[in-house]
Amino acid sequence: MTIVAGHQRPPTISVNRGALALVATLIARADALGIAVSTGAAGETLVDCGAAVTGSLEAGRLMTEICLGGLGSVAISTDSALPAYPFSLTVQTGNPVLACLGSQYAGWMLTSGEGENAYFSMGSGPARALAGKEELYADIAYADTGDSAVLVLETGSPPPEDLVRRIAADCQVAPEHLTILYAPTQSLAGTVQIIGRVVEVAMHKAHVLHFDLTRIVSGLGSAPLAPPHPDFVTAMGRTNDAVIYGGRVLLHVTGPAAEAKALAEALPSRSSKDFGRPFADIFRQYEGDFYKIDGSLFSPAEVAVVALETGETFRAGGVDAALVAASFG
Amino acid sequence: MTIVAGHQRPPTISVNRGALALVATLIARADALGIAVSTGAAGETLVDCGAAVTGSLEAGRLMTEICLGGLGSVAISTDSALPAYPFSLTVQTGNPVLACLGSQYAGWMLTSGEGENAYFSMGSGPARALAGKEELYADIAYADTGDSAVLVLETGSPPPEDLVRRIAADCQVAPEHLTILYAPTQSLAGTVQIIGRVVEVAMHKAHVLHFDLTRIVSGLGSAPLAPPHPDFVTAMGRTNDAVIYGGRVLLHVTGPAAEAKALAEALPSRSSKDFGRPFADIFRQYEGDFYKIDGSLFSPAEVAVVALETGETFRAGGVDAALVAASFG
Amino acid sequence: MTIVAGHQRPPTISVNRGALALVATLIARADALGIAVSTGAAGETLVDCGAAVTGSLEAGRLMTEICLGGLGSVAISTDSALPAYPFSLTVQTGNPVLACLGSQYAGWMLTSGEGENAYFSMGSGPARALAGKEELYADIAYADTGDSAVLVLETGSPPPEDLVRRIAADCQVAPEHLTILYAPTQSLAGTVQIIGRVVEVAMHKAHVLHFDLTRIVSGLGSAPLAPPHPDFVTAMGRTNDAVIYGGRVLLHVTGPAAEAKALAEALPSRSSKDFGRPFADIFRQYEGDFYKIDGSLFSPAEVAVVALETGETFRAGGVDAALVAASFG
Repeated sequence: MTIVAGHQRPPTISVNRGALALVATLIARADALGIAVSTGAAGETLVDCGAAVTGSLEAGRLMTEICLGGLGSVAISTDSALPAYPFSLTVQTGNPVLACLGSQYAGWMLTSGEGENAYFSMGSGPARALAGKEELYADIAYADTGDSAVLVLETGSPPPEDLVRRIAADCQVAPEHLTILYAPTQSLAGTVQIIGRVVEVAMHKAHVLHFDLTRIVSGLGSAPLAPPHPDFVTAMGRTNDAVIYGGRVLLHVTGPAAEAKALAEALPSRSSKDFGRPFADIFRQYEGDFYKIDGSLFSPAEVAVVALETGETFRAGGVDAALVAASFG
Repeated sequence: MTIVAGHQRPPTISVNRGALALVATLIARADALGIAVSTGAAGETLVDCGAAVTGSLEAGRLMTEICLGGLGSVAISTDSALPAYPFSLTVQTGNPVLACLGSQYAGWMLTSGEGENAYFSMGSGPARALAGKEELYADIAYADTGDSAVLVLETGSPPPEDLVRRIAADCQVAPEHLTILYAPTQSLAGTVQIIGRVVEVAMHKAHVLHFDLTRIVSGLGSAPLAPPHPDFVTAMGRTNDAVIYGGRVLLHVTGPAAEAKALAEALPSRSSKDFGRPFADIFRQYEGDFYKIDGSLFSPAEVAVVALETGETFRAGGVDAALVAASFG
Repeated sequence: MTIVAGHQRPPTISVNRGALALVATLIARADALGIAVSTGAAGETLVDCGAAVTGSLEAGRLMTEICLGGLGSVAISTDSALPAYPFSLTVQTGNPVLACLGSQYAGWMLTSGEGENAYFSMGSGPARALAGKEELYADIAYADTGDSAVLVLETGSPPPEDLVRRIAADCQVAPEHLTILYAPTQSLAGTVQIIGRVVEVAMHKAHVLHFDLTRIVSGLGSAPLAPPHPDFVTAMGRTNDAVIYGGRVLLHVTGPAAEAKALAEALPSRSSKDFGRPFADIFRQYEGDFYKIDGSLFSPAEVAVVALETGETFRAGGVDAALVAASFG
């Protein structure tokens, strides 16, 4: 038996390569999606999905699939879990470690300049796996290689030229082979792109809890579509609340059932001391200091973990319709 | 910064070009979809999706995406809003003005002959935007150009040769470059194609209400799949009732919140004086005179409008499960 | 009028050809889907979707679409019918006879060797229609032709070389043109692939009931995603229970309404004398003798049949949330 592909040899998954066809689709449908494609000062391709343009929910859906490195699917669907909010996102990935942590997680701190001209954004998406600047990549033992990079930013303005050149250099690609997608928190596409992190926050919290990530072999999640808000803090609050009070995740894990049970019990947002009020209220209470918020709040409302070893399902948490309504208005 | 595509220059959206790939898919899968493709007397391509053939729900789904000019997506999905009718359509578009009014709306009156040999059908789909015969195109400031046209008809028979030649001439294309898809109201594909207008009817009513259409930047809708009926009036009634009593729409709009609120309150079918009975009963009461029916009845049961300027959501109307059941049987 | 394609001439549907593009996608995305592609001893292509590899729900989704011969679509979606199990499968086909019976049904008995080395598996998928070994093919008057074959097996090990050569010979293809996809009942992909038979079991029972199959022109179904179990019998039980106690199917049929009504009343699992306990319990009660189980149990919990001739919908059965919970744990 000659193995020609697959898991029996070291897998050769490239999240940047996996995103390329989706990026091509996004760009080819730019007019229809209400987005703008341009070439930046360093030669990079800039895709504005919701800053100077209106963008669309569909642009956000594609952005999210790009952010997952082509390793997952995202659907805008009808669901009756919360009757007042009949439209929701469904996110699915068969490789939650690489899709969510190796690609989607917003873990690359990008800064340039100082004072009033300072630029700051957390980089997410496939490019992170080329740069490998984060400790996380050692933890998940993953590095991407290749000559093109795709970066996703939750921001209203693209990075300045010096930062673009540094990003490209860190990714070891020519700036001409770097594509940067961006959309602010307040936009239609931004809303989708953030709520589309419903599985990712579960994966990140599992990592913080020191759960062996290689055991999480499947991630499926759903969260209601939040209405965008023009105020950054309120918009951030709503998109987070969609996940924290409205998100549901189903993970399939290998290994001991007792550990799957412990994971299920620890994962939901309910376990956080800050749980119980809309996110924007919590943020304002801490005077906008993001890092004072209990990190364990960033997780889905409801979690089910299937222990493949025993076939048991462990459930914890629950959707809080009243808090979603309090947040969404 | 060199703009290479997108909204920062005049958009170049062609709903006919946008539909072409979907038409090619429909034709390539003709056997699997239970539809028939033929060449008409004038050289036009005829795609019978449900007249002399059985057709299918999937043919109707593709027909609807074609009717949206490739600017929207349509899914047949499971939903529990109405437990007796677990399957529904979800329609999404990031350009509701061009997708729904510029393309999908059945606004082009097509007639030929007189008396017993008279042919009548309301043309919908991308071809309308080439012909530009309707006032609506001045209102939305849109015209398509190109050398191929796609027309969608809710009818059991294709147009006679003279009418086909006039349609092609009006579209400024050779008849060989005109594709006509048709399916009667009573067919599987027809059912889907009509219920798939759940967002369009909201857009059309917004237009009648003189809402500034350029402010409606996103449309998302859902409606239950009605059972087809062999009687034309009953079939028309059910597909309309799916929208009027079972449809839910979410619009995102720019501009003053007060206007978004007024739009939400005026949009639902509930605001019509004819609201409250199955559509077929209303139609029969008016002795089949379509134009006696209060036009404001043609709208979704439930509407939510998000005012992007303030982040507020305005809701009005509601799904009426009893009326859906009375209509669907 | 020149007919160039479609139902007005004998349709030329090939379920093997219809599956080819999906097989190519599955293989091209092998790493991302967690599956393994290899070449077997006879030269056949083997795609392990869940035996020596983890596989994924998405691999199972594609496997199911392949099993339907490219004549149907399968979606993993969010649904609130069973709040504890928010994720479900939706299966749709416009040609339920060829998709479900001509291709998907596991009706080809494949055996090799004896005693401890005996190999046994029920073959499903498009290849069956090339081999034509089953009486069913005379009943549905279908035979496929072509030079490539796709076989789907619910098993943890691929067939031995002698059996592969016999399969290829029966399909009249070179072993190099035979692709075999396999996944055990207990795997993620296997779970999806089995629950994805929710429409097929309805079609098979309709056949057993001697309903004229040519009258069933559309099939739509939904069933909750069961948690896999490492024990074969329990895993088989859960996937069957997803359909038997949680499955809902909507069929559109031609012909007399009275026959549609009789079909609806006879179809649901409730009509079986073995109905009422988790499938694994029933199986164990009969000491693992599959053939002692009342065959009429293998059908969806809830059925709606639309008689296109009269527009009536006939409903019978119902989802049993308590039994689904008892089975899924």
